[in-house]
Amino acid sequence: MTNNELMQEDLNYIFHPCSQMKDHETLPLIPIKKGYGAYIEDFEGNAYLDGISSWWVNLFGHCNAYINEKIAEQLQELEHVIFAGFTHKPAIDLAKRLVSLTPEPLQKLFFADNGSSAIEISLKMAFQYFKNKGETRPLFVSLENSYHGETMGALAVSDTGLYKEVYEEILIKTLHAKSPALHDEKEALEHMREVLQKNSGKICAVVVEPLVQCAGSMKMYDASYLKALRTLCDEFGVFLIADEIAVGFGRTGTMFAIEQAGICPDFLCLSKGITGGYMPLSVVLFTQDIYDAFYCDYHEGKSFLDSHSYTGNTIACAVANAVLDIFEYKNIIKTNQEKINFIKEETQKFKSLDNVLEVRQRGMICAIELQGYAPKERIGLKIFQEALKQGVYIRPLGHVIYFMPPYIFTQEQLKKMIETTYAIVKSL
Amino acid sequence: MTNNELMQEDLNYIFHPCSQMKDHETLPLIPIKKGYGAYIEDFEGNAYLDGISSWWVNLFGHCNAYINEKIAEQLQELEHVIFAGFTHKPAIDLAKRLVSLTPEPLQKLFFADNGSSAIEISLKMAFQYFKNKGETRPLFVSLENSYHGETMGALAVSDTGLYKEVYEEILIKTLHAKSPALHDEKEALEHMREVLQKNSGKICAVVVEPLVQCAGSMKMYDASYLKALRTLCDEFGVFLIADEIAVGFGRTGTMFAIEQAGICPDFLCLSKGITGGYMPLSVVLFTQDIYDAFYCDYHEGKSFLDSHSYTGNTIACAVANAVLDIFEYKNIIKTNQEKINFIKEETQKFKSLDNVLEVRQRGMICAIELQGYAPKERIGLKIFQEALKQGVYIRPLGHVIYFMPPYIFTQEQLKKMIETTYAIVKSL
Repeated sequence: MTNNELMQEDLNYIFHPCSQMKDHETLPLIPIKKGYGAYIEDFEGNAYLDGISSWWVNLFGHCNAYINEKIAEQLQELEHVIFAGFTHKPAIDLAKRLVSLTPEPLQKLFFADNGSSAIEISLKMAFQYFKNKGETRPLFVSLENSYHGETMGALAVSDTGLYKEVYEEILIKTLHAKSPALHDEKEALEHMREVLQKNSGKICAVVVEPLVQCAGSMKMYDASYLKALRTLCDEFGVFLIADEIAVGFGRTGTMFAIEQAGICPDFLCLSKGITGGYMPLSVVLFTQDIYDAFYCDYHEGKSFLDSHSYTGNTIACAVANAVLDIFEYKNIIKTNQEKINFIKEETQKFKSLDNVLEVRQRGMICAIELQGYAPKERIGLKIFQEALKQGVYIRPLGHVIYFMPPYIFTQEQLKKMIETTYAIVKSL
Repeated sequence: MTNNELMQEDLNYIFHPCSQMKDHETLPLIPIKKGYGAYIEDFEGNAYLDGISSWWVNLFGHCNAYINEKIAEQLQELEHVIFAGFTHKPAIDLAKRLVSLTPEPLQKLFFADNGSSAIEISLKMAFQYFKNKGETRPLFVSLENSYHGETMGALAVSDTGLYKEVYEEILIKTLHAKSPALHDEKEALEHMREVLQKNSGKICAVVVEPLVQCAGSMKMYDASYLKALRTLCDEFGVFLIADEIAVGFGRTGTMFAIEQAGICPDFLCLSKGITGGYMPLSVVLFTQDIYDAFYCDYHEGKSFLDSHSYTGNTIACAVANAVLDIFEYKNIIKTNQEKINFIKEETQKFKSLDNVLEVRQRGMICAIELQGYAPKERIGLKIFQEALKQGVYIRPLGHVIYFMPPYIFTQEQLKKMIETTYAIVKSL
């Protein structure tokens, strides 16, 4: 079958995520036949370097042999079992490893299926924690320019402009504080203090994406903000929820972004990379104190009764364990450092281009913000199309190009991705 | 390792779904080592008949050889690829098959990861449909005693008493109409009409679980209500969202419960059984008219921009296709009929017990409601524990016992499950 035949077949039935389907009248929708390592390949044999890890999820390449092997093993034993009243070894192993990899106060965890569901769990738990202690605190604070997911609770704490505004009447009201990625850090902290002060006793939690507001144009900020924010949250007695759904598992250079600030949040939400790009899974880690607030006699009715059918899915946990195996035996955090430096060096030259406003990087995430283009031009789309022709898949956010490659990219592949993009940007 | 060792290890780290963890001070948490066919088996060799399909998800047994084979094949080709701008054959095949299996007006679909996310998508789309046409209709109507999920939008349209009440201040307000499962059908319809009339122009959709309110104590109602509800929704110009997350894929005897009413909803939400109990996946099907309301030039900003990282996950789609293969080549809907009749016959005898209020059944779902027990007694928990000792896993909802077995249960296995339960109930 040709790409076009499959595309036509697809368009008969499927509404794709985050897409205006009318675009596909002119923009080909590409059917992928296979994936291997850094590449995805369509039905006509065109291979593309997956420069954004298939939406920030892939870590160790497509169809990774080791992960495949571990899935095959798991399928011989147990594919899934209800996780209420029952458990299984892949979940226990994974929980133990995640608790040991994260800051010491994070002692317990709850499983879910996707990032949005993890955010919802952290919001609900934060709220109910206070409720269980006799306080009603219905407000959440998040940052300007933040993105925390698509379900109505996660969307309510996001600040994604048009994406959210259309739903205004069906979302609960939340508070936004100035983002340190858009304002001076001091100004952002002062504003956060104001928000906390003004709504004292009504706020249960502050939720942030540590270091990088990924969906928010890959805007970045410093670890010092997180450190100060942790202090502020303590001062006002509100929880700090760290949304590391996108930045966790090595993306910012350390296993988790919070490590760079030397802080521990009260809740830590993880997903995406947790299964190395294989399948949906998410986890919320939290403190023993939070766990204890729900621990009581059944009839007191204070438990956290959230559940999704596939909570703690056995296959997904087995995959996540395989991912952590690879982190360990290949010493990924250390070996990534060389790639991080290489990306840094190779992207310097963008800075000299007139149409480049800024090059910014946190670990394995590097963004190049262009200037001088009106939204109507959809410059990002043009760059995407041109790069694709040359075998490189990147997916700019408006006028912000970014690289977020799987960790198995070789220097040669990194170079190809960067050089191809550079030539395109230069020629604009 | 022993069951107890693994349980202790688990309890160090994991907060389980829908559980009061303190219960596990006396109630063993059971680590499952393997699953095969109708059975799950712990680390000490005790095998349990999985009488509730591991939370209503398993259809064709644990570690099904055919599904395993299809996963292995898929892993050689492609494990996952971003689903914005790209597509793959398992998703296209699955979409085509689901569209062909469901009523003709359901022409398009959107993928997500779990039931809650599917509900959120249907709510957001229903709301935005009207917004795109210049109308703001911020209200949703659902039924009393309904359950639609855990995320804050899905929870807002649920009516789950204590499970929801604790979150009252962080949920949007929605409307509930009397349930036909708890009231006379005529009364329920009249109340629905009142609600629709009173809030005319402000309601965008009515959401219902067709035929069985599963989490709501397996309360059941007739197809005639759905037929009348469809007419009412048309009369008032509001969407009908059918939540077949639990009842879809043959549970009520037909492939989808709506078939029994001969109606077509505007949105159909599917999950759970879609992957035969293997892994999270959900789908929302809707009409061409709905799709068209989002189809326009990009700059009009009217698209539906929802996305989850793993939307359209390749492995999950391959699994769902394998599940549909089995439905076809084993003619499951037809062959289940014999099992449905067998369950009906075998459960008749419960009716003569003094502590049984009602035996009700819709297809492969059969509930036995007990009477004369105070909530404090936790009679369901006692029955669960006793049945488990005898190798049968059932999970009563309070004082309502139910059977929802995978479709591979033999008559002998059905008999064992029912007889064991009968003896326990009789002995209470």
